[in-house]
Amino acid sequence: MRIAVLNGPNLNLLGTREPDVYGSDTLADIERLVRERASAAGAELTWFQTNSEGQFVDRVQALRGTADGALVNAAAFTHTSWAVRDALLAVRLPFVEVHLSNILAREPARRQSLLADLAIGIVAGFGAQSYALAFDALMAHLRQRDA
Amino acid sequence: MRIAVLNGPNLNLLGTREPDVYGSDTLADIERLVRERASAAGAELTWFQTNSEGQFVDRVQALRGTADGALVNAAAFTHTSWAVRDALLAVRLPFVEVHLSNILAREPARRQSLLADLAIGIVAGFGAQSYALAFDALMAHLRQRDA
Amino acid sequence: MRIAVLNGPNLNLLGTREPDVYGSDTLADIERLVRERASAAGAELTWFQTNSEGQFVDRVQALRGTADGALVNAAAFTHTSWAVRDALLAVRLPFVEVHLSNILAREPARRQSLLADLAIGIVAGFGAQSYALAFDALMAHLRQRDA
Amino acid sequence: MRIAVLNGPNLNLLGTREPDVYGSDTLADIERLVRERASAAGAELTWFQTNSEGQFVDRVQALRGTADGALVNAAAFTHTSWAVRDALLAVRLPFVEVHLSNILAREPARRQSLLADLAIGIVAGFGAQSYALAFDALMAHLRQRDA
Amino acid sequence: MRIAVLNGPNLNLLGTREPDVYGSDTLADIERLVRERASAAGAELTWFQTNSEGQFVDRVQALRGTADGALVNAAAFTHTSWAVRDALLAVRLPFVEVHLSNILAREPARRQSLLADLAIGIVAGFGAQSYALAFDALMAHLRQRDA
Amino acid sequence: MRIAVLNGPNLNLLGTREPDVYGSDTLADIERLVRERASAAGAELTWFQTNSEGQFVDRVQALRGTADGALVNAAAFTHTSWAVRDALLAVRLPFVEVHLSNILAREPARRQSLLADLAIGIVAGFGAQSYALAFDALMAHLRQRDA
Amino acid sequence: MRIAVLNGPNLNLLGTREPDVYGSDTLADIERLVRERASAAGAELTWFQTNSEGQFVDRVQALRGTADGALVNAAAFTHTSWAVRDALLAVRLPFVEVHLSNILAREPARRQSLLADLAIGIVAGFGAQSYALAFDALMAHLRQRDA
Amino acid sequence: MRIAVLNGPNLNLLGTREPDVYGSDTLADIERLVRERASAAGAELTWFQTNSEGQFVDRVQALRGTADGALVNAAAFTHTSWAVRDALLAVRLPFVEVHLSNILAREPARRQSLLADLAIGIVAGFGAQSYALAFDALMAHLRQRDA
Amino acid sequence: MRIAVLNGPNLNLLGTREPDVYGSDTLADIERLVRERASAAGAELTWFQTNSEGQFVDRVQALRGTADGALVNAAAFTHTSWAVRDALLAVRLPFVEVHLSNILAREPARRQSLLADLAIGIVAGFGAQSYALAFDALMAHLRQRDA
Amino acid sequence: MRIAVLNGPNLNLLGTREPDVYGSDTLADIERLVRERASAAGAELTWFQTNSEGQFVDRVQALRGTADGALVNAAAFTHTSWAVRDALLAVRLPFVEVHLSNILAREPARRQSLLADLAIGIVAGFGAQSYALAFDALMAHLRQRDA
Amino acid sequence: MRIAVLNGPNLNLLGTREPDVYGSDTLADIERLVRERASAAGAELTWFQTNSEGQFVDRVQALRGTADGALVNAAAFTHTSWAVRDALLAVRLPFVEVHLSNILAREPARRQSLLADLAIGIVAGFGAQSYALAFDALMAHLRQRDA
Amino acid sequence: MRIAVLNGPNLNLLGTREPDVYGSDTLADIERLVRERASAAGAELTWFQTNSEGQFVDRVQALRGTADGALVNAAAFTHTSWAVRDALLAVRLPFVEVHLSNILAREPARRQSLLADLAIGIVAGFGAQSYALAFDALMAHLRQRDA
Repeated sequence: MRIAVLNGPNLNLLGTREPDVYGSDTLADIERLVRERASAAGAELTWFQTNSEGQFVDRVQALRGTADGALVNAAAFTHTSWAVRDALLAVRLPFVEVHLSNILAREPARRQSLLADLAIGIVAGFGAQSYALAFDALMAHLRQRDA
Repeated sequence: MRIAVLNGPNLNLLGTREPDVYGSDTLADIERLVRERASAAGAELTWFQTNSEGQFVDRVQALRGTADGALVNAAAFTHTSWAVRDALLAVRLPFVEVHLSNILAREPARRQSLLADLAIGIVAGFGAQSYALAFDALMAHLRQRDA
Repeated sequence: MRIAVLNGPNLNLLGTREPDVYGSDTLADIERLVRERASAAGAELTWFQTNSEGQFVDRVQALRGTADGALVNAAAFTHTSWAVRDALLAVRLPFVEVHLSNILAREPARRQSLLADLAIGIVAGFGAQSYALAFDALMAHLRQRDA
Repeated sequence: MRIAVLNGPNLNLLGTREPDVYGSDTLADIERLVRERASAAGAELTWFQTNSEGQFVDRVQALRGTADGALVNAAAFTHTSWAVRDALLAVRLPFVEVHLSNILAREPARRQSLLADLAIGIVAGFGAQSYALAFDALMAHLRQRDA
Repeated sequence: MRIAVLNGPNLNLLGTREPDVYGSDTLADIERLVRERASAAGAELTWFQTNSEGQFVDRVQALRGTADGALVNAAAFTHTSWAVRDALLAVRLPFVEVHLSNILAREPARRQSLLADLAIGIVAGFGAQSYALAFDALMAHLRQRDA
Repeated sequence: MRIAVLNGPNLNLLGTREPDVYGSDTLADIERLVRERASAAGAELTWFQTNSEGQFVDRVQALRGTADGALVNAAAFTHTSWAVRDALLAVRLPFVEVHLSNILAREPARRQSLLADLAIGIVAGFGAQSYALAFDALMAHLRQRDA
Repeated sequence: MRIAVLNGPNLNLLGTREPDVYGSDTLADIERLVRERASAAGAELTWFQTNSEGQFVDRVQALRGTADGALVNAAAFTHTSWAVRDALLAVRLPFVEVHLSNILAREPARRQSLLADLAIGIVAGFGAQSYALAFDALMAHLRQRDA
Repeated sequence: MRIAVLNGPNLNLLGTREPDVYGSDTLADIERLVRERASAAGAELTWFQTNSEGQFVDRVQALRGTADGALVNAAAFTHTSWAVRDALLAVRLPFVEVHLSNILAREPARRQSLLADLAIGIVAGFGAQSYALAFDALMAHLRQRDA
Repeated sequence: MRIAVLNGPNLNLLGTREPDVYGSDTLADIERLVRERASAAGAELTWFQTNSEGQFVDRVQALRGTADGALVNAAAFTHTSWAVRDALLAVRLPFVEVHLSNILAREPARRQSLLADLAIGIVAGFGAQSYALAFDALMAHLRQRDA
Repeated sequence: MRIAVLNGPNLNLLGTREPDVYGSDTLADIERLVRERASAAGAELTWFQTNSEGQFVDRVQALRGTADGALVNAAAFTHTSWAVRDALLAVRLPFVEVHLSNILAREPARRQSLLADLAIGIVAGFGAQSYALAFDALMAHLRQRDA
Repeated sequence: MRIAVLNGPNLNLLGTREPDVYGSDTLADIERLVRERASAAGAELTWFQTNSEGQFVDRVQALRGTADGALVNAAAFTHTSWAVRDALLAVRLPFVEVHLSNILAREPARRQSLLADLAIGIVAGFGAQSYALAFDALMAHLRQRDA
Repeated sequence: MRIAVLNGPNLNLLGTREPDVYGSDTLADIERLVRERASAAGAELTWFQTNSEGQFVDRVQALRGTADGALVNAAAFTHTSWAVRDALLAVRLPFVEVHLSNILAREPARRQSLLADLAIGIVAGFGAQSYALAFDALMAHLRQRDA
């Protein structure tokens, strides 16, 4: 199983950025957490972060044929990027939408996701733990599909 | 740890009700899945389902002092019940919002949750698996809080 | 043919409740009218009224396997109850939506029905006569389907 | 009793037009069905169809003094024509609004009727049968009024 | 004079529930306060609380012929229950709408009341005192009407 | 001076149609009133009424070169007809918008005019007198323009 | 007949203020025009202008018993002043709403009038001439009422 | 205790103004009623009415240091005056919002209050009695605060 | 190949009507341009214009069996006519939507097309040239379909 | 250069009014700050504050011919006063809109300015400093215009 | 003639991406088609695709002085990018908006174009053919302009 | 003091781009103006412009620890970029929002700023001068904070 994790803008600042909203784990901490989980599950993991929408789209396009599933935390792009949506529509890869904070409990514009209806499901609000849970959810989905 | 699972209207029909949306697991199947998880985690589990908003509110009120956390799948009440919201506000118990289907991918009225901003987080879209993941998320949250 | 008639909140007050809107027939008068029609048509009729949404949902669930069709006048639940909608979605029984008053001629909130798109059709505005016409419509539909 | 039936634009194509929505009966089939009903009830029937809003308005105006009641299926005019509404307001003739399809189950613009609050009631969703039921409803109303 | 006081969902938790919003008086404290007032005024008082919409509707219906006026704090039902509204419309009993908190100062959904236009008037924002004032208002209204 | 008066749908029913809204003058009475005014002012008058939008548009188009100004009471077309608006835009003839009733005091949909911003001005609410005042206003405008 | 003319804020600048919108006549010119008309009609005229909403309300209140009808050009108050509306509601004097410019052809906020549904009718868009026409309309109305 | 009562525009017309909405008591009657109550409670009362928003704001500002609490019936200013709101925000004096009519039962624009979230609470719908009840509510609040 | 060109209201005024928006070509000029194109392509062309919605609907209905494809410039009907939409839905003929001006660059109401989702595609903004391009597009589509 | 500074309602309370929002400088402090700036720039300064909309309008009208430019802080009138807007439109004097707080960061109703599109520009959010910066901006604008 | 073709995000996936919406032609196929057309017309063609908004903006800016016209298919940027709009506004080059699918027939957000009012016109819905038609339209426009 | 100036998309075209809206100064002219001001104030200045949202976000992130304050003219990103907002939220650096044109006087979408509530204040509408004033405002703010 090849799993890709895609992180959108400003997630590279995790740990220092608004810790009351996003927690004190850095993105490297979260990567370590998910890598452990992946290695325990015998899955191959690639990790990606960018502040650029164009690079995010490029990376989504590159998933075709190189990954079996993805965790997608598109951050700010979640709410406004039709280009990211179009890319996910085009590659049609199973993915889980992940958010550190509970987006349904935030300001109205952040409650809307342009990606959610393309995802298997959503895990939001558990900080770093959201990634671990989403990883489990994705693996369970892929195994069930292949069973 | 005492964990309560609250299920709202029509969830008693699971397995036969719109299987393409909600999957073929019955509510009893899901209960079994979560009970196993709970017993492995050494947690005590209570399980509840009702079609009545009043009974749902009564049950939420009764959580105070009898449970340490809850999984809440309020089903149709999620989108319209201020009474359920008020009850959850009153007992102030940590809970995770669970949905079998990906509510963000459904019709607009179902994309709104009156409960989400009171929850730790949300897990939606993974069928029966949503409950298992939500249970893990709740346990991790309670352990972290008590650490 | 087994036909169920489900009546929502406050319909038990018919005859005394706002007679200029709902007419002077009592619910018992209407039941008698429909029973005559049913017995003439050789159909078996069950009659139900409740002020409780939970009991209404329970009753809809119980239709599965015990009725061939239904007349549904959900009264106030028509406009707001996702739980009743979910129950009707789950049992997938052919039903006709009935209203004593012409709901399209009333205040905006009453012009919206959460149930109508699940119904075969709608009959509204003819007072007690609405039930008789709806009964005819349901019988014609069931006969045509079985033809 | 003199009853007029008024049919709006495109109803002349019935039977061939979107049969999954409107059924396979032609307008002539429906006319035959209603004529039988009328002759059994000893009522005189006039039948009218036009694609022109102006002619529809002219015809409504001409009802005054020449008909005792009407069935009105204004089709597309139902949702947008203030001229038809004004004509019905002016002649103040008792009429039943009829629709082949369940307009409350269709796209939002078709869920609105500019005529409904002027009608005795509405029958929608039963295909050709809608006309038969509406005829019964109108006759019952006129007899009750004259009783 | 026979006066009924109807309390909606979660009011049974008063005193412990969000004391900064609703004050520290329990519902029993408030009942005692109003009973004193009633006995001083020579009025007979009945007191009711429920978390169930259906029971609330039943209770409103039962007021006809058994009460001369009512204080109604429908809590969460205030904003969404057409069934409670229909019951109050049906019994046409003079009542005063009461709220512990100043609903006009809260979130938008709580600023809307489906009952207010049926009430004599509204008293909101004075905690337990709201009930005492509303009682005085109701008595003054009934005396003036009977004068 | 050649003045045309254009009347839209249902104005032919004036006098009998909702007299409390539109007054008891017939359209012939109004025509007589305006003809007197015109002859006193030495103006040539043409009078037109139709229930058909297409004919109304044809008539507006025909004004070019045959009239110096117009009174336009488009009735129901006022609020919805882009075709009438386009025709008036195309002929660019000075005209006054006339209404028997005070459209700003009626239901929201009737408060909007698709024609008003093309008109010199508007006179509304004075029954038959609206036409007389509008005639005066048009004449004053044409004289001032030619002065 | 005693007729009052009430002019709202900034009308004292007429003639110099945006002449392309409001024309080059000063308010004194308009007063002269209306005074001539009044004296020809044997009516007594009082003229008033203020930039203050409070004084406008005072003046409307003072009309009771001192005037038989009024011309009201409330200018900017037209669109926002509930106080002016309440005053006009209180004195219940017949009045005509006047505007120099065609308010239905201007920006959306200016197309709304809080006063129009209290007026006999409206005359707008003819510059100074609007006042003359409105005067005629008011006189015709008062004479007809007294006839 | 020094209590100020502030009355907004058109309240000086009470008794003659729309008696079906506002009752037949004059403002002087109401003042007398409240003065009696105040003198019984040993409170000093000042009474104020104006039709001018600017004077209303001046008066609110003057409350600082000269009053311990206020009853505020801002009438039409309630719904639109940010200046009155800002003044009440600035002086931060405890006040009760009073209305003669049940504003929640009137047209939508009157259901909104720009002041309510600054008030202790609201009393509306009881005519002159609203002032008496609001006075009691204010006194109870001030005593409780000082206790 | 039999191609029909349908033109809606006011297009008969082309050349003289708002030349800055619609260009200086007359409808006859455009017809000539398309006829040349058609004859070069060996296609048979019928040309139609009307100001009447009813005649437009009649003409659309008549296309069935008499044309292989159509160019449709419904002008003002584009934005409001459900009757024209229903007719196009009923005949299910391949057609291209044509506009002389760039409708997406005009006022909001003109940016909406009730027909566009039924069309193969849209060509707008190129004046007379729009018809030529649309003709090419239609021919290419029909050839590809038949290939 | 003659510069006028116009201050709207409640600005006279500066320093004591909500210091966390508006700072602790009094209006006199700000006047002193701007006077120094003006005298350094050789400009003549007039200073004005009122709580009355009518006086504010009077003062704006009086600017014509007596000032070369203005600083306008209309406070609460900024968001709702069409009368102030009309006055500024009428005198057509160059002015800068000033706000102590950052109005774009406040509640929605305060984010809208009815004056901004008439201003040269806007300076907001810098407390007393906003006036100093706005003065510099105005002087730079007037010098550039006259250069 | 120097013509540039600008393609936005995800168009590089054409042929494999949602072929039922976008057809089976690859972007290279389309480029070949347009290059043939260009060489036949003696025009010089440059071709560009990017997933990055910033690069798209850079490329638009670079058109000034290096191209005589452009075909712009901004894909997802069409609906949300004010930066692309600003760039096109700045270079003021004649361009045609192109879309493979009929954007007016898709979900609401895709029906809005931030660019359309800057374009000469729009061609949408004909797959690869859209580019060919748009090329013809652009050439015709440029020739006519230079004629 | 280290001050950074960040300029968003298309600002590199200043001087040639829509000079009637943005003035004739180039971005280099403005840089020179601000550099002079900075050197006079003894502040160190860094200057940045990009058309890419990703690079803009990168640059904002890099401000932490390398700048004491910033001027931000995010141009088109101002209205739509949640990524830029998130970056500014994360670095929590004091900044002033600058605009050349008066954004409150432009089309609705440009009146909204996603950044304004994070800024100290806003300066808009004074062309190049906006930057100079904003620089002064920022320096005054930083000095006051450090005082």
